[in-house]
Amino acid sequence: MPLDTQFLQSLADIVGEEHVRGQNAVAMLDPGVDPSNFAAGLAVRPSSAAEVAAILSLCDATGVPVISHGGRTGLAGGAVSAPGELVLMTDRLDELTIDPVGRVAIVGAGISLQSLQEACAAEGLSPGIDLGARGSATVGGMVSTNAGGMEAFRYGMMRQRLLGMEAVLADGTVLCDLALVPKNNEGYDLRQLFCGAEGTLGVVTRVTMKLERADPPSVTMLAACPNARTAIRAMRNIEDRGGMLRAEIMWRDYARVVAEHTGLSRVLEFCDAAVYLIIETALDLDGLGEALSPSLDAGDVIDAVIAQSGREAADIWGIREDTFAASWSLPHQLWFDISLPLACLDTYMASLRARLDTLAPSLVLFGLGHLADGNLHLTICRKCSFERELRDGISQAVEHGVKDLGGSMSAEHGIGTAKLAILERNASAEKLAVMRRLKAALDPNGILNPGKVVPAAR
Amino acid sequence: MPLDTQFLQSLADIVGEEHVRGQNAVAMLDPGVDPSNFAAGLAVRPSSAAEVAAILSLCDATGVPVISHGGRTGLAGGAVSAPGELVLMTDRLDELTIDPVGRVAIVGAGISLQSLQEACAAEGLSPGIDLGARGSATVGGMVSTNAGGMEAFRYGMMRQRLLGMEAVLADGTVLCDLALVPKNNEGYDLRQLFCGAEGTLGVVTRVTMKLERADPPSVTMLAACPNARTAIRAMRNIEDRGGMLRAEIMWRDYARVVAEHTGLSRVLEFCDAAVYLIIETALDLDGLGEALSPSLDAGDVIDAVIAQSGREAADIWGIREDTFAASWSLPHQLWFDISLPLACLDTYMASLRARLDTLAPSLVLFGLGHLADGNLHLTICRKCSFERELRDGISQAVEHGVKDLGGSMSAEHGIGTAKLAILERNASAEKLAVMRRLKAALDPNGILNPGKVVPAAR
Repeated sequence: MPLDTQFLQSLADIVGEEHVRGQNAVAMLDPGVDPSNFAAGLAVRPSSAAEVAAILSLCDATGVPVISHGGRTGLAGGAVSAPGELVLMTDRLDELTIDPVGRVAIVGAGISLQSLQEACAAEGLSPGIDLGARGSATVGGMVSTNAGGMEAFRYGMMRQRLLGMEAVLADGTVLCDLALVPKNNEGYDLRQLFCGAEGTLGVVTRVTMKLERADPPSVTMLAACPNARTAIRAMRNIEDRGGMLRAEIMWRDYARVVAEHTGLSRVLEFCDAAVYLIIETALDLDGLGEALSPSLDAGDVIDAVIAQSGREAADIWGIREDTFAASWSLPHQLWFDISLPLACLDTYMASLRARLDTLAPSLVLFGLGHLADGNLHLTICRKCSFERELRDGISQAVEHGVKDLGGSMSAEHGIGTAKLAILERNASAEKLAVMRRLKAALDPNGILNPGKVVPAAR
Repeated sequence: MPLDTQFLQSLADIVGEEHVRGQNAVAMLDPGVDPSNFAAGLAVRPSSAAEVAAILSLCDATGVPVISHGGRTGLAGGAVSAPGELVLMTDRLDELTIDPVGRVAIVGAGISLQSLQEACAAEGLSPGIDLGARGSATVGGMVSTNAGGMEAFRYGMMRQRLLGMEAVLADGTVLCDLALVPKNNEGYDLRQLFCGAEGTLGVVTRVTMKLERADPPSVTMLAACPNARTAIRAMRNIEDRGGMLRAEIMWRDYARVVAEHTGLSRVLEFCDAAVYLIIETALDLDGLGEALSPSLDAGDVIDAVIAQSGREAADIWGIREDTFAASWSLPHQLWFDISLPLACLDTYMASLRARLDTLAPSLVLFGLGHLADGNLHLTICRKCSFERELRDGISQAVEHGVKDLGGSMSAEHGIGTAKLAILERNASAEKLAVMRRLKAALDPNGILNPGKVVPAAR
């Protein structure tokens, strides 16, 4: 009975009674993407690394698992909790300091991406990372999942934005090196180990981040292309002139369904095509016209529209970003988040469609993604629920060939619980063994987010 | 007596007799930067990860330390060996495949940076990393030290270039994931752990790297500035217009001495200044003029010259890159490789000079570095050798304040043996303890580059 009165009193002694939240209090909180995120029924809200250290020491001594929460926008079940566990909320780790001269930020784990973006924008800067869940996703969660998003192709994923880190180990040891410089090789890079570990090796409490200058005024274009290959060529023509800010791809079925459900069908009326390419660019209209011209001549782009206002640009982005709208008519969905070398996109998508047809022709395949990274978000959906066997078959249909092509079965959403089986099938036994050795070395009692990221040994 | 006949025969069985090199053979090899690199007197030249695995298994079983060698250009003693140890040469790990469509490369550890650069250039691409030792430095060594160089401010250090890795653990386990995609979060990122570990956690045998498009034609400018702060403002004016390819800073004493010893004094005749700024930019002459004009008006740039030919550009770069020329008149040198937040450069350099004056006014301070990263290479030198006490005093004078300012005492050259004491003084006890736990978890018998990177427990 670790979660007894004494345990609760110890928590209250650390953070203050008002920051320990029991069953009734957490029931009123938004659980985020996964309804089980607050299943623990107990949460604690520390306000400093020292308080996190005291909580982890207590939990390590009493064997209570600790599940760290950021914005609960994770799509892989990394924040799911269970009775008997303790949710560690990071929302009070809310330091935010911007140094506009050095172009760096000191950011508490609980700061949302949008708050960081706004603070940077006030100084003409940007954190160099953006994703759809910006309003809720926290920097701590983004570090812990090594989040990617729409700017990763030019500024890297979260691990590339990190300069320094403060993190707490399972035994309460605080590691703190809030460096403000990009070149920093002082022994093993523990920042990089904790980044992407989803709270299984330590709890990230604060980071320092490299900032970029804010994007210049941009033009948003929606282009209709015959396939991914042609979309890539059109993208390269723009990229190689400099100033490509974003490049997203949507396959027809996804774009049409979301446009319909969000009242944006008019946006796609200019052309019915297999693939839509959204480009945001710093090129002016003349420059964009010059970059686009050879693609139109070659038939790589069938037709294109350029947003004439912020509203029109927002409509185009609305189709790309309102991914949940796709679930209105097809509520049963399996999500995948993969990366592929760019040259493989068309053949992969065609062969996946064929594999799905073999399983059940009624399956709908939604495809969209970050084109320059070859990062595809695939949703396989239908009106009725999936039987276990079909679910497994679909996963294997998606996995087929990805690793052999040099791709990844987990691009930017993390492993959590949802992708454990996929990781187990697609990582080598040697790698999994090393992961277990590292986990055992840093969290010998296994209290940090147990059952996540690291597949259990057979 | 592990290095007995049976051990040598076992090595020969793995790689073939001609690829085991004894005392006489290694004595004829270039030891590189450190004369002790081949002090082991025994080297083996595997041609595949499987051969590396067999060698490490043998060494792990017999307790023979293994020192991996790349180009032996390391400045921190990471490749130093001793009798009884085995040098593992990577020169036969020489795969090199470029995919120009996907803009990725598969690169054996033994490939030199220059070979990689040339293969990329043939496809209009670049590895996105460059440093002075390009002719000798190998990709394996650059991964193991997380090399930086002159393009890191825009493309990141070596860890940001890495997509996939093949590495061999101490026990002969081969970890191989040669992914070709930038977004890839399949559990703990072992690539990032091995990168920068200088061969103490595993031997890197092959990597996949992200490539960039080749730089456009560039203009090289040498500007004379009153101090670092003004040089930074001038740099930002150019950077914020896009197209800044390189930005290097040299303080007067370094520039004058190297120019004199390389016959390039005429290059500096246009202006005697405290600081010289080298900018390589993709801006055309008009654009550069516009970017420079406010800096000239403000006095941030006293005067500037623009190279009118490739020869003139090479002369400017000759002063920056011929760092060893500085040792001709002042052969006794202590090297430091630090990072500082940009806003601190002038006050740090002035206070360092003052601290050195307190120790011995005759000490000469050479300063140069990668300005956009705040990465300074400092050499403190004099005509006669340093006593132990003075050596320690100088190191402490350089270290003073660096960590408190958010800087780093080890930017891009690694820890090796030369920086062990500095790491021990400047990293927290908690971090050092975690490093030891990781080392013990992955190399329990301590055969991989022992005595390097990880300070021994007290």
